[in-house]
Amino acid sequence: MELTLAEIARLVEGDLDGDGSLKIRDVAKIEEAQPGEVSFISNPKYAKFIETTRASAVIVGRDFPPVKQATIRTQNPYFSFLKLLVMFHPAEEAVSLGTHPSAVIDATARIGSNCRIGACVVVDRNCQIGENVTLYPGVVIGRNAQVGDNTVLHANVVLRERVRIGNNVIIHSGTVVGSDGFGFAREGEHYHKIPQIGIVIIEDDVEIGSNCSIDRATLGHTIIRKGVKLDNLIQVAHNVEIGEDTVMAAQSGIAGSTKIGHHVVVGGQVGIVGHIEVGNNTTIAAQSGVTKKLPPDSVYFGTPARPIMQAKREEVALRKMPELLKRIAALEAMVMETKK
Amino acid sequence: MELTLAEIARLVEGDLDGDGSLKIRDVAKIEEAQPGEVSFISNPKYAKFIETTRASAVIVGRDFPPVKQATIRTQNPYFSFLKLLVMFHPAEEAVSLGTHPSAVIDATARIGSNCRIGACVVVDRNCQIGENVTLYPGVVIGRNAQVGDNTVLHANVVLRERVRIGNNVIIHSGTVVGSDGFGFAREGEHYHKIPQIGIVIIEDDVEIGSNCSIDRATLGHTIIRKGVKLDNLIQVAHNVEIGEDTVMAAQSGIAGSTKIGHHVVVGGQVGIVGHIEVGNNTTIAAQSGVTKKLPPDSVYFGTPARPIMQAKREEVALRKMPELLKRIAALEAMVMETKK
Amino acid sequence: MELTLAEIARLVEGDLDGDGSLKIRDVAKIEEAQPGEVSFISNPKYAKFIETTRASAVIVGRDFPPVKQATIRTQNPYFSFLKLLVMFHPAEEAVSLGTHPSAVIDATARIGSNCRIGACVVVDRNCQIGENVTLYPGVVIGRNAQVGDNTVLHANVVLRERVRIGNNVIIHSGTVVGSDGFGFAREGEHYHKIPQIGIVIIEDDVEIGSNCSIDRATLGHTIIRKGVKLDNLIQVAHNVEIGEDTVMAAQSGIAGSTKIGHHVVVGGQVGIVGHIEVGNNTTIAAQSGVTKKLPPDSVYFGTPARPIMQAKREEVALRKMPELLKRIAALEAMVMETKK
Repeated sequence: MELTLAEIARLVEGDLDGDGSLKIRDVAKIEEAQPGEVSFISNPKYAKFIETTRASAVIVGRDFPPVKQATIRTQNPYFSFLKLLVMFHPAEEAVSLGTHPSAVIDATARIGSNCRIGACVVVDRNCQIGENVTLYPGVVIGRNAQVGDNTVLHANVVLRERVRIGNNVIIHSGTVVGSDGFGFAREGEHYHKIPQIGIVIIEDDVEIGSNCSIDRATLGHTIIRKGVKLDNLIQVAHNVEIGEDTVMAAQSGIAGSTKIGHHVVVGGQVGIVGHIEVGNNTTIAAQSGVTKKLPPDSVYFGTPARPIMQAKREEVALRKMPELLKRIAALEAMVMETKK
Repeated sequence: MELTLAEIARLVEGDLDGDGSLKIRDVAKIEEAQPGEVSFISNPKYAKFIETTRASAVIVGRDFPPVKQATIRTQNPYFSFLKLLVMFHPAEEAVSLGTHPSAVIDATARIGSNCRIGACVVVDRNCQIGENVTLYPGVVIGRNAQVGDNTVLHANVVLRERVRIGNNVIIHSGTVVGSDGFGFAREGEHYHKIPQIGIVIIEDDVEIGSNCSIDRATLGHTIIRKGVKLDNLIQVAHNVEIGEDTVMAAQSGIAGSTKIGHHVVVGGQVGIVGHIEVGNNTTIAAQSGVTKKLPPDSVYFGTPARPIMQAKREEVALRKMPELLKRIAALEAMVMETKK
Repeated sequence: MELTLAEIARLVEGDLDGDGSLKIRDVAKIEEAQPGEVSFISNPKYAKFIETTRASAVIVGRDFPPVKQATIRTQNPYFSFLKLLVMFHPAEEAVSLGTHPSAVIDATARIGSNCRIGACVVVDRNCQIGENVTLYPGVVIGRNAQVGDNTVLHANVVLRERVRIGNNVIIHSGTVVGSDGFGFAREGEHYHKIPQIGIVIIEDDVEIGSNCSIDRATLGHTIIRKGVKLDNLIQVAHNVEIGEDTVMAAQSGIAGSTKIGHHVVVGGQVGIVGHIEVGNNTTIAAQSGVTKKLPPDSVYFGTPARPIMQAKREEVALRKMPELLKRIAALEAMVMETKK
């Protein structure tokens, strides 16, 4: 695809300063862009690259200083760039329309129109698959599961029986939704399995990374609400609830029955114990261990997680500890001497 | 299914106080139960819900105060509840009896009677599969592997060649048993692979969660003993041994050649270094980093893991550090002044 | 297979002291070896087993004290042992030559000679697969992906579209290469997906464990350079670069755009934040949290990661804190008294 710079300026509703007839064939990062490509500067850290970039044109903020290249000035250069990114790289339809002959779709499953079902996909009894759904090769969907419209399940995703996935959901490869919760009752020396008969509900507009484990509830449901974004290798235990538009980075885990609020931000490798609540809009820094209820609108860090300013003060103090030991020994010596 | 309250009381060997002819159609959590459902109170934290529950009947302990609802009193209300849970929700046979025509079973594999082998399952040469085994769609079993009676492998589980799985084992989706141990020998600038020719042995009554990695031994075997329960996303390295009835929560990892005792309890996101032993009946709290041999019958916490009472005292002391810095500065000022 | 002790001594270029006609049928660990097997002692910790081993012969270093068994003395007993290990246990060709009839190979894919493609493998449009490649059952390869010569992808590995895998690469089961990077732009209350249109490049001689997640770049590429070895359950985010011959232990994670040098050693469960650099030849101890740029040729530990000697001193100081609190209280009392 090729667009002129004038066309691009119109698309991003920006002010063009330069030759509008220039042909642009792609977008690129400022430090990697080549002639024929448009780039952008949003983060001031990257402003220095304006001197050396080979990009034919650069999208900058309205208050960016004058530069020698062709520029398009917009309110939010990053969003303008994203718009062009989608324009130049429309999502590929990576599975053909219809059902691959090697897929095994139970006769009782209902499949909506315009679905793309890849090779070796297995859809079990009584499943309901919406419209425009894409199931990549190797996806396995258990009995009575539901998948909403426009949802994409990547290769080798597993949905266990009765889970319910909403509309416009994306689940990446290897993720398992609806595996049994980790529930055992100890009786003497042995553990007996507690049946996990609940389900998982994933609401609309959720995206889940690769190789995550989302367990079904013991009773009732594990629920991931609208707009949640989970990174890779995340553990969500039975009966957890994750509120709307919460995001969690990779390798974090939430233990059973914990309720995470909406618009919470969880860093990577965080662990959150079971049976607690994390308030709305709270941020938990990477590698923290959350051991008790967290209030809303706060920032926590550390193991055990504590308000980040406190954690940092303690961190600073710990840095001084080895020197402090010497100061205290010196003090003791002086006091002893004084006493004598 | 529907049972009368009298029938339920008999099933759980409890004493009924209320109308035995009441029809009960399901079990539910005390705070979610509806008319027609029976619930229970075991944890005193939930006793308050007795006032507001809509359950038609509640199972309580023998010493629970009198209540207005129909009650069944038993020794252990939680076990009574589990018994009913299994009664009202018998395990679904989610794969049809026999072998799905799309499964690829090598002619030399021996499959026991009453097996359920799903779509797109692959069983390689000389495998031995016991009786009443369920292989969900997408399971792949390598050459010469053995699977015992009544074992269930969920969708997309991979067993590599020669691993041996016992009876009554459950392995959840995406888990890999028998991947190569992480063994390399550095020679100059490069690493050379050390062949991993050992196996994995998983004994009877083990349950392993989803997306775990259980590596085969370099030589000999990695072994997970009878009754062990592993949660999701767990790493078990080559030549590890996990003793009977040990339980490990999600995202924990054990490095090579470490030996975990029996009845050990490991919290989530714990890391245990290689070549050590963890004693029987020991508990390791979540997110700990175990760096050396742990004695039996103890509770450890922290990185590096230390006796939990010690770790907590240090934790409390660390909390006081920022204030302590001020106290020491004040002391120093006073001592200096005194000295003058 | 059976070799004489004389043949073995010649193979490992060692000096034989004992009966060269002895028949040896396998190698084994010193504490498990049986008559007819050869073992070795490399680590001095294991020297004691020389007294009790049942091995018919033992490979030892040139300066090892005289022993009663037949010995072969070499410069590096461990390497000698590995050589024999490979000799007695040649890699099994676990997938038959050719393409299994149940595999779904798009007509436009180019497959090199001597490939072994297992049951239910899916290879999409325009893929290029080199020579002598082994694809175990259930592998899914997306459009336009490339796989080099002699590469082995274990069961249920997923390669997303356009990723490029080099020669002599091994990827273990359940690993996903090329899942979308975790990139979202917040606009008001919601997060919008940033298209991840870059790729993943994995160079020659790389080995990746099971159930890892290697994300594709937003733009450009995520790159894992020649000779890198990754353990299981590792997270590599978008636009990360890992330098040559770097090794990472299980459950570690690297956030977006971070650049790891060559010959870096990363312990298990380490987390590394995004947009930083880790210098060449640096070691990061297990469970560390790396929050800023690390220099080359150093050893770091802790959260936040700091030079290991410093971290250990602080650790020691923290151990003394509870006692220190008492010492300070005592000091304060004495100073107060003195003042009076």
